[in-house]
Formats: sequence, structure tokens, C-alpha cells
Amino acid sequence: MPSYDQLNSSQRKTLLDDLTREYDALKAKGLALDMSRGKPCADQLDLSTPMLTMLQAPEDCFSEDGTDCRNYGVIAGIPEGKQLMARLLDADPEDVFVFGNASLTVMHDAIARALDFGCLGSTPWAELSAVKFICPVPGYDRHFAILEQFGIQMIPVPMTDTGPDMDAVEELVAKDASVKGIWCVPKYSNPSGATYSDETVRRLASMKCAADDFRIMWDNAYCVHHLMGDEDQQDHVLDIGIACTEAGNPNRYLKFASTSKITFPGAGVSAMAASAENISEAKRLCSAQMIGHDKLNQLRHARFLPTAEALADHMSKHAAIIRPKFQLVEKMLDDGLGGLGIAKWTDPRGGYFISFDGLPGTAKRTVQLAKEAGVVLTGAGATWPYGDDPKDANIRIAPTMPPIDELESAMEVFVCCVKMAALEAML
Amino acid sequence: MPSYDQLNSSQRKTLLDDLTREYDALKAKGLALDMSRGKPCADQLDLSTPMLTMLQAPEDCFSEDGTDCRNYGVIAGIPEGKQLMARLLDADPEDVFVFGNASLTVMHDAIARALDFGCLGSTPWAELSAVKFICPVPGYDRHFAILEQFGIQMIPVPMTDTGPDMDAVEELVAKDASVKGIWCVPKYSNPSGATYSDETVRRLASMKCAADDFRIMWDNAYCVHHLMGDEDQQDHVLDIGIACTEAGNPNRYLKFASTSKITFPGAGVSAMAASAENISEAKRLCSAQMIGHDKLNQLRHARFLPTAEALADHMSKHAAIIRPKFQLVEKMLDDGLGGLGIAKWTDPRGGYFISFDGLPGTAKRTVQLAKEAGVVLTGAGATWPYGDDPKDANIRIAPTMPPIDELESAMEVFVCCVKMAALEAML
Repeated sequence: MPSYDQLNSSQRKTLLDDLTREYDALKAKGLALDMSRGKPCADQLDLSTPMLTMLQAPEDCFSEDGTDCRNYGVIAGIPEGKQLMARLLDADPEDVFVFGNASLTVMHDAIARALDFGCLGSTPWAELSAVKFICPVPGYDRHFAILEQFGIQMIPVPMTDTGPDMDAVEELVAKDASVKGIWCVPKYSNPSGATYSDETVRRLASMKCAADDFRIMWDNAYCVHHLMGDEDQQDHVLDIGIACTEAGNPNRYLKFASTSKITFPGAGVSAMAASAENISEAKRLCSAQMIGHDKLNQLRHARFLPTAEALADHMSKHAAIIRPKFQLVEKMLDDGLGGLGIAKWTDPRGGYFISFDGLPGTAKRTVQLAKEAGVVLTGAGATWPYGDDPKDANIRIAPTMPPIDELESAMEVFVCCVKMAALEAML
Repeated sequence: MPSYDQLNSSQRKTLLDDLTREYDALKAKGLALDMSRGKPCADQLDLSTPMLTMLQAPEDCFSEDGTDCRNYGVIAGIPEGKQLMARLLDADPEDVFVFGNASLTVMHDAIARALDFGCLGSTPWAELSAVKFICPVPGYDRHFAILEQFGIQMIPVPMTDTGPDMDAVEELVAKDASVKGIWCVPKYSNPSGATYSDETVRRLASMKCAADDFRIMWDNAYCVHHLMGDEDQQDHVLDIGIACTEAGNPNRYLKFASTSKITFPGAGVSAMAASAENISEAKRLCSAQMIGHDKLNQLRHARFLPTAEALADHMSKHAAIIRPKFQLVEKMLDDGLGGLGIAKWTDPRGGYFISFDGLPGTAKRTVQLAKEAGVVLTGAGATWPYGDDPKDANIRIAPTMPPIDELESAMEVFVCCVKMAALEAML
């Protein structure tokens, strides 16, 4: 099949008629498939079954410092909880604050504290006439939802293969003190899968910010979530903590991670790592909100994943389950759309998503067509602030959750819908 | 021993000398006892050991509606989680929002939402020039700490045996629209142990409030925490939800409870119950903060405490462990201080505390003396807003945590310190 822009109007029309028949046949199958969110599949969840019975008797419930993890207390986490999360966060355990089951909550609350109380003595952001955040796009819809709810203005900056467009970022932060932060998913980004280059990390750490209390929200959600078994093919990201400290801006970053896509997404452990000053402020402010998070769950996790080797081994089992799903999606996109000139997509080495760009003006239509044929995708526009993708081109593909035969059916529908939407837009 | 006010100055001096010798002997024992917080003891924690192994295999991890509790989702809780918490909260499961391990966080966040977004369309409290809360005293220090951190002005109102002084409360809320809420621990109050009368509940529900968005923060922390086995001797509190609805103020209340003092304080389940409108608003706002709380832990709890009978049976085991501790404290206070005219204290039928009032101006000194003799009590003043008990008289006694022999030693010190502080104040 030649590129669609080589076809004349009549050929496109014929092709669209053919595709519409194919689409109607797919629709008639009555599919009910969900590719909307980056959720681990049941086989992945089963990998953590031993964690369910990690603690069985009262004597199992004590941390290495003698704390009875059943009772109240220990706001920032037990020693082994900090050690586990420090490993995910490239941090010193002393600089780690362990929270509950969701890093989303930790990130939301960190921004809420900055709004209410400022950062290390700065004016509370809520008292300023404007607060703005830089949002690399495409990005993560739940990051944007936090900012939107708090009325923080979002400034989209394009993602590249090496991270956000740093020329644009540096210009924005240098000139405008109301620009208070940036969202970063530094490794296997959501949704592109790109990993920040060392240069990007160093520029973020050292750039001149008009706002003294500028904060890099470093959501390292996919820190150990490699798809490739061979270490040479795994991405590595420079630690923002070291980079910021070296650049003389030790308080600029807040690092976040969780075990959501390592053990049980609904019952994991999350954490924040930051400078001693930032952690100390967080402990002080959080002490009005909490006495301590679930220490039994910290203990379960720490005993299930006691070493870096155990963690790497566990993650390689995840990769073995989901790698074939990514490969299938890539193959079906190549086979179905390759050379047609109507789409491009990423080929990530880790994380949970493939970022797909159709022709401008086709993403909403593609998602709608797929939905009507029983395949739910992440909403078009979700990867942009305010749900508004100005080109209406980007779609996030989440291959992990469906069983592989369902994924194949879903991708068959997707490819058909992309082609139909492209032809409709061209005609 | 006659009442201290019958003694002349020389007799008091002699007595203080005797007590000082007794105190020095106690001090020489080198005690290290902690009665500062209302923490369950190890024997109580052991009662919930079966919960550790309630879920053992993947097939155990599904809720009754088929949800895989290991994965993401279900923001307001699984059906059986809602049912369990509805039982604690006297609520319809549909009106229950299940959260994480701490009702303190739920209450903190409810106030944070009112500050940021108002209540059901009202002006965000943070935009008002003043926000005030009524705080029945003595009360719970962590309630006060939330308000203090957010800069909400606290107005103390005396607690009585039937709840807060309602004449004072009604006058405050009627005249001042900046009075936005009241803290209530309606059953076995912290620290007095008093339970609100039906009349108090009805007056709270029906009183005329200048603020349309006035909220009763109904912290039913001790809802099933009876000390008495005989049902006739157990307190019951009228449901604020029914009372508010009957009074035409269905959105006025937010009810809170947790399993912290039922199962594991550090790894329990908490919840809020409120009108459908309030719950719907909370779900909408919380959706930026969380995807769902720990559903595996909800499932563990629901299976461990599947019925009202199982819950009552479990709570009677707690009572059997801690009732002798309360009885010992009462006996040592009676024997040591009865008739001296220098103190009074409560005799609660449930909850976690005894509220103690010494002579004005003696509470800080008593706590200090006890601390120097190795017995840590809740700080004097903690039961008042801003830690400021204007009479310096109230001390919260928390008998549950120490083993009974340690409790006896601690109370021996306490009684001695109370008498010394009283005589010092009189001399």
C-alpha cells in the first residue's frame, strides 16, 4: 500500500468504503476491550502473591529497629521501608519519606503544602496572583488534573527524545517568577517512553530560575520498569538530587516513586525523597495530617524485595509478561500503518505506554470510532493540559492490561480506525 | 487524711517534706514509663492476628462485586469495606467513602478541601478574612493541631457530661458567619469519656447557623469502644446524620471513624460518611488526589469482622484487656487523692482516656514532676486549643498502653506528683 498522500480522491474514497466494511465487521463482533489505563495485568499481579503471607504472626510485625509495626507512629517510615524506597529513588534512606499506597497523593499533597505554606519560608503560592507550571507534552493526565484543580496555570513545552525542550524551559523559568515548577517523568516517560539525557538533567538542575522556590516534580514512576532484559538496552537517568546539589540548588527537586507497578497497584507503598531541609519541612507539616502510614505494608514490601537483586529479578518477570504485548502492538502498527504517511509512534524500552501521533485533527475521531467498536482507549487530548491537544493528533496506547488475544483484537480495531480517520480528514 | 484545705501551713509543709522523700525514692527506681498517648497495648494488637493471613492467594483478593483488589481503582471503597465502615458510622453504605489507614488524614483533608474549594458551592474558606471553629474543651490535641496549622481561629466551649455547652454553641453559631464548624467526639469523648445526650445531638443538628456551610466534624473515634460488657452499661449516641436530615440540615455533618483502635492502629481502615451531596463532592475533589485506597486491607478487615456480632465480640475482648487498667487507675486515684479536695477525675464507660483536673496552676508542674521521675504523661495544656489551658488544671490520663504492673508504678508516681504540686501551690 502506497502512502495515503499518493492516492487520488477517488482511490481514497474506495479505500474508505473498504475500511468501513471492515470496521462494521469488527464492530459486529461485540468487543468490550479496555486499553485506557496503564494497569498491570493479572499475571503481573500474581508475581507478588508471596507478599500476601509475608507477615503471619505477631513476631513477624516488628521492624529492624524494634518498632511494633501494628501500632501507631513513625511518620516517615520504618528503616527497611526507607531502604526499599531509597533504592527506587536513588536516594539516601535518611532523605526518604515513606507514604501510603499512592504517589499521586504524595504529589498532590506536596503541591497543596506549597500553596498553603510556601516552600522553606517562601510566600505561600496561594497568596500569589498567578502560579504557573511547565508541563512537557504529551504528558500524564493525572499530573495535569492536580494543577487544574488548584487553578495553577499550565504551560505546555514539547517533549523530545531527550526530555523537555530545554531551550524553551530555560527561557520560561528565567523570565517569570510565577513559574513555580515543572512535571518530569524522567525515565520511560508517560506516554512517549523517552528518557531524559544527562544534559537535560543537568540543565534542569542548574538553570537560572526567577522563582527561588521553583520545584522540579520528579515523578520517577518507571524507575525500574525496563522492558529489555539486557542491561545494555535498559535506560539510565542521571539522579536529579545529585545534579541539583552539584549545581548549588539542593532544594529544587522533589523525587517521587511507588511500588504500584512493582507489586500491587492498589496496595503498594509510595515515597518522596528530597533534601534534608525539604524532608524536614514535609515532616513538620504532615504531622498535622498523619501519625504514620501503613508500616505493616512497608514491612511486607521490604521483606518481599529485600535487595537490589531481588528487585531486578522481580522486574524481569514483569518484563517477560508485558514485553510480548509491546512487541505485538509495534508489529501491528508497523504492518498496518507503516509507510502510509498517516502516523508515527514510539518504540519504548520501558514504562507502560506507546505514544501515537495520527494526522492532525484525527485523534478524537479515532478514539470515538474505536469506542463505538467496543475498544476503549485513553481519551484523545488526555496527554495535554486541560485535555486540549491543539493538533488533535496524540493518543496514548496502554498495552499491558488486556490478555494478548484481546490486545490483538483491540489493535486490529485501532489500526482500522486510524486509517478511516485519516482518510476522512483527507477527503 | 483530711482535705488539704483543712491543713495549716505548717502541716502542709511537713506533708510536702514527706512527699518529697517519697518522690525521691520513686525517682531512684529509674522508671521509664509512657502514658502519653491512647495506644492499644500488645495484647490488644494480638487479637487481630488472624487478619494477617486473611488473604493468602490471588483468588482471595476479589471483592464481592468481582473487583480485583490488588489492582488500581474504586475510589470510595469496595462494597464490603463500605458495609463494615457503615456499621461503625451508623450510615447507609452508599453514603460511605472509605479511605486509608488514618481518620486524622481524612479529617485534615476535609478541612483542606473546604478551605480550597468551599462546601457545595460556598466561598472557599481560605478566601474569607476569618474562619473560626468551636472546640469543646478539654478536647483532642490533634483536632486542634489541624486548625492551628491552617490558621483557623479556635473558640473553646466547655464540655459537660452531656456534650458541649449548647447554650454557648448556639449563641456563637447564630451571630457569627465566620464560625464554620465544631469538633465533636460524641461518644466516650477524648478525654472526658462523656457521651453526647440526644438533646445535645438534636440541638447541634437544628441550631440556627449564620454560616450556611457550617460543618459538624463528628469524630466517632470510640463508636464501639465500650469498657462495659453489659449492654445496659454501654453508652449510645443518637445518629447525627438522621438528626441533621430530620432538622432540614442534611449537609451539616461529616462523620468519621476508623478501625485504628479495633484492629491495627498503624494499618487500619478509615472512612467518612455524609449526605449524598457531600460524598459526591468529596469524590469529585479527591479524584485529583487518589485513584483508590488500599482495597486489600479493606478486604482483610471486612472478612475479619464480617458481622455486627463479630465486631461486638471482638470489642468485648479489647474491653476485657483494658477494663482492669481503667479500674486500677480509678482505684489508685480514689485511694490516693479521694477526699483531699485537690482533684477530680472522670469515670468513663468507654473510650481511651480519663480526664483529670488538679488544682488550678498545678497541671504543668505535675507533668514536669512525673517526667523527672520517669513517667511521661500527655503534655499539660494539650487538651486545649494552642496548648493553652487557662487554668493549667487538666491532664489526660491514657491507661491502655502500659502493662498493668507498669501502670501501677506510673500511677503511684502520678498521685505523689499531684499531691506535691497541690501543696506547692497552696504554700
